[in-house]
Amino acid sequence: MPGVESTAEADWREVPGGVTAPLGYRAAGIAAGLKPSGAPDLALIVSEEEAIAAGVFTTSQVRAACVDYCRDLLQNQPTARAMLCNAGQANAATGEFGRQDNLAMARQVGAALGIPSNQVLTASTGVIGRRIPLDKFTAAVPTLVNHLSDDGSEVAARAIITTDLVTKSVALESTLGDRPVRIGGIAKGSGMIHPNMATMLAFITCDAAVSPHLWQQMVQRAADRSFNQITVDGDTSTNDMLLALANGQSRTPAITEPGGPAGRLEAMLTEVCVRLAKAIARDGEGATCLIEVEVTGAAEEAEARQIARTIAGSMLVKSAVFGRDPNWGRIAAAAGRAGVFFPADQLRIQLGEFLLMEGGEPLTFDRAAASAYLRQDPVIIRVGLGMGTAAGRAWGCDLSYDYVKINAEYTT
Amino acid sequence: MPGVESTAEADWREVPGGVTAPLGYRAAGIAAGLKPSGAPDLALIVSEEEAIAAGVFTTSQVRAACVDYCRDLLQNQPTARAMLCNAGQANAATGEFGRQDNLAMARQVGAALGIPSNQVLTASTGVIGRRIPLDKFTAAVPTLVNHLSDDGSEVAARAIITTDLVTKSVALESTLGDRPVRIGGIAKGSGMIHPNMATMLAFITCDAAVSPHLWQQMVQRAADRSFNQITVDGDTSTNDMLLALANGQSRTPAITEPGGPAGRLEAMLTEVCVRLAKAIARDGEGATCLIEVEVTGAAEEAEARQIARTIAGSMLVKSAVFGRDPNWGRIAAAAGRAGVFFPADQLRIQLGEFLLMEGGEPLTFDRAAASAYLRQDPVIIRVGLGMGTAAGRAWGCDLSYDYVKINAEYTT
Repeated sequence: MPGVESTAEADWREVPGGVTAPLGYRAAGIAAGLKPSGAPDLALIVSEEEAIAAGVFTTSQVRAACVDYCRDLLQNQPTARAMLCNAGQANAATGEFGRQDNLAMARQVGAALGIPSNQVLTASTGVIGRRIPLDKFTAAVPTLVNHLSDDGSEVAARAIITTDLVTKSVALESTLGDRPVRIGGIAKGSGMIHPNMATMLAFITCDAAVSPHLWQQMVQRAADRSFNQITVDGDTSTNDMLLALANGQSRTPAITEPGGPAGRLEAMLTEVCVRLAKAIARDGEGATCLIEVEVTGAAEEAEARQIARTIAGSMLVKSAVFGRDPNWGRIAAAAGRAGVFFPADQLRIQLGEFLLMEGGEPLTFDRAAASAYLRQDPVIIRVGLGMGTAAGRAWGCDLSYDYVKINAEYTT
Repeated sequence: MPGVESTAEADWREVPGGVTAPLGYRAAGIAAGLKPSGAPDLALIVSEEEAIAAGVFTTSQVRAACVDYCRDLLQNQPTARAMLCNAGQANAATGEFGRQDNLAMARQVGAALGIPSNQVLTASTGVIGRRIPLDKFTAAVPTLVNHLSDDGSEVAARAIITTDLVTKSVALESTLGDRPVRIGGIAKGSGMIHPNMATMLAFITCDAAVSPHLWQQMVQRAADRSFNQITVDGDTSTNDMLLALANGQSRTPAITEPGGPAGRLEAMLTEVCVRLAKAIARDGEGATCLIEVEVTGAAEEAEARQIARTIAGSMLVKSAVFGRDPNWGRIAAAAGRAGVFFPADQLRIQLGEFLLMEGGEPLTFDRAAASAYLRQDPVIIRVGLGMGTAAGRAWGCDLSYDYVKINAEYTT
């Protein structure tokens, strides 16, 4: 969908290295004994130089200690050197003890790195209401810092996951002023919201030089076009968080105003976020395929995104895809209830290459072939509103028996 | 929850008769061959005298012909003599043909009853995109009218259902000015939204005398406290409709202003709607129990209802209940993301009699006993916000394997 989420042509290439692909970053992931399984459960990403830092946080009224801590820090001072994450305990609904534990973690890691504790951003994921075993954490800090390395991204990606089946990692490279610039990211999350394991976290690194206000705006817009388009019906967990550092170590020209280079950097940032978001949606609990919904012909991008999200989040659409049923009625009904005005007699619905509805009325189509298309991965649903030129995308996954099984049998 | 949804003490009693319990109403249900199964599929409810009529309609952008027809009629003239409903075809996404078919149906029934066609309200439920076979309908009209009777409510209730497992019917009686007054209702719908079978319809009859404007307000508020509290995340179908007639044949004093008798009538109307709404939620596809969520301590009733609805509609709460998992974390997370501010450190969560969380922090509780409680029907979740005195309720059902099975295997 060129021209929709990007303000520039895609001129990047994928590179290895995840969050350590940009210059000046090291990462580590170790097993500190926080997860009962003994799997890696503590991750740290550090920038050599002070980086401009931006964050996007859960809008829930029930928030983990780390969320309020990071939000407050970044409001006062938009810079950081380190991003720390534990998996196993969400440290949400843990009251004043939780706040103190969180501060202690930042202090200990700051001391081990020789930086102020307010340069250490924190994130947690795991069981709500469970405190982090601070003794185990404290014992693990020296090992964690010792393991920091240029190729530590993948093990850090492993250390932040909970019910995820796969790690999520990406890095892209482009040029600014003829010098290479890179953005890397790792994420965790299992498509369907799973608040008890603290849903979605993403950590982004970038070696461009960009002013704090611009960086925060870019990160917010990128999140709106990616991670916020995979949540189901406004679902947001107690711990959802996206943190993004830009340390300027590419020594590319500083980006201080919108337009040209800022647009190109934002397009690459958005692509990093979209790839991570799609990986999360594809890893949905019990999912057999990724569903991509593309809405065009809207008056406003936000309205297009709203309709796309409603369709991608519809339980009926999701179960129809699982049942390989080319059920345009469910898609039309979801679009209609999204809370956005559109003329119903202009509605156009396409499933892959199969046109199912046009001018608001159903068409005859090859049902067997359309059903067979639903065995593809991803499944692409295209909806045209016939009003304006704005467009938006959203991602989800199908709803299978296994979703119910995973969520019914998981016990607190 | 006394004093919450009613402005008067409950002083009604249940009576038999459904929509024909109030004076002056007859009903019929017949098999016109519209459903492939041969089950009853055409219902008619008629008032002897012209009744004040009110309606609440789907807010979807994709609406069936009958929705726009009834809404427009009632805006011009809030009276009616008859409510007609077919099951089998939704007559939505059928364009100009659908509009003409709908008008023809009202005209034919009006002629057979000897009343103007604009005194016949219409409703449809069934497959979206499917036109009503007008030849079969026309052939059935004389039989339909001939079958009208004082005890036709139950067969009318059968004729409006689609995937419902049971019919939904209720009638209550009270007194106004020492004379008996009655409200009856029938409804169809299967808890979870099921747009391809056109979700939720309710038909209410009342023999009180009430002014049009008051009646419309009462019906809207009753719907907000009942049917609108069982839809999942704003789900509304192409055909959702509540129609309510008040014909004054009880010869009770005319209600023309708010307060006293108006409040008592509204409380009884709300109770009729709540009972029908709960019956719909309990009949959810694949459901094994009804979930009732009661939110207290809110600043505004609408906010309490919003949080209750978010919890009742949460896939994670629903699957936890199916899994008999007393998972307070999912309840807290759903409350937190409902879009309503509350202080998280005041949050109180109760499952039946088990207090799971207080002051925003988890308590220790008898997990086995709480899990056993989740085998009850209904399951009652109580959430306290600790802010104000407003309260609200919502209803849902658990999410089982059978929901996925029903919705994945239903083919267009």
